Amino acid sequence: MFPLNQWYVAGFVWELQDKPLARTLLNRPVVMFRTESGEVAALEDRCCHRSVPLSCGSLEDGGIRCGYHGLLYAPSGQCIEIPGQVKIPGKACVKAYKVAVRNEIIWLWLGETADSQPVGQPPEIAAHDNPRYKYKGGVFHYDAPYQLIHDNLLDLSHVGYVHTKTIGGNAKTHMEAPTNVTSDGDNVRVVRWMKASQPPATYSAAWPFKGKIDRWQEIDFHVTHLNIFTGAVDADTESLEDPNRGGFHMRGFHGITPETETTSHYFWTMASSSHPDAPDNLELVYQQTAVTFEEDRVIIEAQYRNMCQFENASMIDIHVDAGANRARRIVAMLSQQAEQAA
Amino acid sequence: MFPLNQWYVAGFVWELQDKPLARTLLNRPVVMFRTESGEVAALEDRCCHRSVPLSCGSLEDGGIRCGYHGLLYAPSGQCIEIPGQVKIPGKACVKAYKVAVRNEIIWLWLGETADSQPVGQPPEIAAHDNPRYKYKGGVFHYDAPYQLIHDNLLDLSHVGYVHTKTIGGNAKTHMEAPTNVTSDGDNVRVVRWMKASQPPATYSAAWPFKGKIDRWQEIDFHVTHLNIFTGAVDADTESLEDPNRGGFHMRGFHGITPETETTSHYFWTMASSSHPDAPDNLELVYQQTAVTFEEDRVIIEAQYRNMCQFENASMIDIHVDAGANRARRIVAMLSQQAEQAA
Amino acid sequence: MFPLNQWYVAGFVWELQDKPLARTLLNRPVVMFRTESGEVAALEDRCCHRSVPLSCGSLEDGGIRCGYHGLLYAPSGQCIEIPGQVKIPGKACVKAYKVAVRNEIIWLWLGETADSQPVGQPPEIAAHDNPRYKYKGGVFHYDAPYQLIHDNLLDLSHVGYVHTKTIGGNAKTHMEAPTNVTSDGDNVRVVRWMKASQPPATYSAAWPFKGKIDRWQEIDFHVTHLNIFTGAVDADTESLEDPNRGGFHMRGFHGITPETETTSHYFWTMASSSHPDAPDNLELVYQQTAVTFEEDRVIIEAQYRNMCQFENASMIDIHVDAGANRARRIVAMLSQQAEQAA
Repeated sequence: MFPLNQWYVAGFVWELQDKPLARTLLNRPVVMFRTESGEVAALEDRCCHRSVPLSCGSLEDGGIRCGYHGLLYAPSGQCIEIPGQVKIPGKACVKAYKVAVRNEIIWLWLGETADSQPVGQPPEIAAHDNPRYKYKGGVFHYDAPYQLIHDNLLDLSHVGYVHTKTIGGNAKTHMEAPTNVTSDGDNVRVVRWMKASQPPATYSAAWPFKGKIDRWQEIDFHVTHLNIFTGAVDADTESLEDPNRGGFHMRGFHGITPETETTSHYFWTMASSSHPDAPDNLELVYQQTAVTFEEDRVIIEAQYRNMCQFENASMIDIHVDAGANRARRIVAMLSQQAEQAA
Repeated sequence: MFPLNQWYVAGFVWELQDKPLARTLLNRPVVMFRTESGEVAALEDRCCHRSVPLSCGSLEDGGIRCGYHGLLYAPSGQCIEIPGQVKIPGKACVKAYKVAVRNEIIWLWLGETADSQPVGQPPEIAAHDNPRYKYKGGVFHYDAPYQLIHDNLLDLSHVGYVHTKTIGGNAKTHMEAPTNVTSDGDNVRVVRWMKASQPPATYSAAWPFKGKIDRWQEIDFHVTHLNIFTGAVDADTESLEDPNRGGFHMRGFHGITPETETTSHYFWTMASSSHPDAPDNLELVYQQTAVTFEEDRVIIEAQYRNMCQFENASMIDIHVDAGANRARRIVAMLSQQAEQAA
Repeated sequence: MFPLNQWYVAGFVWELQDKPLARTLLNRPVVMFRTESGEVAALEDRCCHRSVPLSCGSLEDGGIRCGYHGLLYAPSGQCIEIPGQVKIPGKACVKAYKVAVRNEIIWLWLGETADSQPVGQPPEIAAHDNPRYKYKGGVFHYDAPYQLIHDNLLDLSHVGYVHTKTIGGNAKTHMEAPTNVTSDGDNVRVVRWMKASQPPATYSAAWPFKGKIDRWQEIDFHVTHLNIFTGAVDADTESLEDPNRGGFHMRGFHGITPETETTSHYFWTMASSSHPDAPDNLELVYQQTAVTFEEDRVIIEAQYRNMCQFENASMIDIHVDAGANRARRIVAMLSQQAEQAA
């Protein structure tokens, strides 16, 4: 069971072109498409007639038409045409999911019960609409449960060992960085500073630092996504507590949505600031971020395969696990709540 | 369980050359080969010594020789030589299956009980030996249960949605075609007419029609195969009830044999008539038929994967399902009968 | 369950270079590496922190470092560094396996109980260090249980049917060769002679025989490996009972280690003698041996797939099975002993 009274990321608006988009989200096969009026619709991906995926069909003004016998469905999920048949049975319909679009992200609400109404809007991802930043993103598929991705992102001490070619740098500097873990309701915040450290490869390539840097990592965990604000200023030039500080900013959005209990979708964007001397650094930052996240995928999938091999083996905790463990307690509590409501 | 007192298609004679042919039929791994006298033999595909598939062996005058230790089996299944050993134990034998060849099709009889004798000969597929037609065929493998292929062939209303590039044409014309469903014992007949309709791509390419056409589909379902007679004449020139009518004829043979409960073999041929102005249309008809059947395979496999995803989801019936539903009742009854006999 | 109070082959020393080597042995994922002092270490392939395979990490003077958060393990399995953390919990360790190297072979001891001590040294494979021979080898992976490989090697009558292009020759000569099966404790010996026979392709290519040959096969089965001494002299020139006889010698080492109940590792070497007129025949013998063993793999994997298809089908024994059956009784007895000790 997963936490269900949540907005989960289902995709990005740029993925919806002239074809239906199929994606299994929290064990539900869903087909998404743009309606005539430009809204995004999300239906159960199964024609009620003979179970063919609606995503094999085609988009029409009125909705989506099954590619086998032509049943046409409105964005509401109601079948509105059965070719060659006058009467449309009341049962001829499919489940429609609640979706909302904000900052180019498509969010899906399942809810703990059939009639559960979304609690508020999806969260704002401000970096997507902040003129200071440009951003770009992607979708990765993981053969691993989603909480292993939470663990990875809440514990950036791994950066020095796993991402040696991009954002790593000196491994011990990462492991020894002072770390502050706090929480607030269902959210966890981890802040880490690496003052007077060497800039890693990506930072040096994207920003003209003068020498050593004061580097920060601010990780904000929410149940369905994380916002990670990392960056650096030239050492000893600005306070890392100043919310208006300058320097090189990387604002990562990480939407982690279970596909099934053992597989996951990873929807990510990276927004970065640019220096007047390096105005077009976005493509470089994007490419190196993709390399970095691919390195994570390799290690997390290897980790999960090994966890299956060593079923029931106990794990020991070390100092870097505080944030991840706190997040796991929150997810466990909300999952249990969803189970009781079911 | 499947209906068992039936002749099932096991292959075509042209598949048997100088090597054994392995195929799993109704859950039984079978090896087929030509005997010295030109007959077709079908044995359990397993050496009784150490279980190596006999299909990994070689053909000899006397039968088939295992490729591991050289045990030689007669077409009867009896082991007739154990190299290096004088005495051949009585238990050294494998099951032989009853096979019959008719119109270049190899048919296999399993029977509900071990001693069940075939009821009559395999059916005649007359188009294979009718000088009016030329024909050609193929074998497709499906990752889907065999009855989904029955459904597809008994309900040609899908042609307009699935086969847009070949035999489709106007989708609504197909869905609205008057349809007549009758049955006779274990057979179901579906007849559909599309008068004064536009010829679809394959028809126009294969036959010099003058304009609109009167098109027919006559589907004869038998438990293990279907004969589908489709074709057209120039509109208003001949009666679609005249058994001797001319025009463009496509006579399809469709042998549907379960490999397992969830996978199937689809043995098909297409026989077509040719016009004096287009004497060599067989290759075109064959190629476009292969494209058409491949389109069916794609949608049926997607349908089956989705049925597994949405286990236990109910389906609603529409007007086109009458023939397929009647065939399913027949198969259910005969399967039950086989189960009781077992 | 497998026999456990045994030395099993885990690899060859030349497989250990500058990277860790991962291999699952008897259901245990193991990582092997060379220590600073040149010894071979074998650890459970799982970091005790978050279960990432240690084989994804890197080698350092002190041992092996996890590639996720940098925990460093000594060859003893003890964690000796947790970067960024002073205290190392006592539980921070992984299992270390007993290994020994002899004649360039790495052997692993599991033992029936946690504190079981190895019984003696691993066996000597003298041909690896005999100046009369040169040798070379390889590692094959089998999708089949290990005892099917025992069966194959204990019954070389199959050589004439399976290895027609290399060491086969006349199939019936093999099947009719006089065979002597004896046993001594947990070892089985099969000796077969083919006097005045035609040399097979590999023999003719590797040695200048004058005409017919006296050929022998001496198979020594031990629970975890077989030594197979084959070869030939010119017919009627030397006694096959003379331990100092000359001619063409092929001394095969065959370490058969279960990966799991249904998959296996096959570690092999082939040592051969050379004639003054053909001093460099090793590469030819090696290449043709690899072809030969690949042929075995194909047939044994087909056999195993078929055994799964025909679950519970009984097998009949023939004259060639005496050695293999005796070996199976020994393995069954030792497996049962391991089960009782567990």
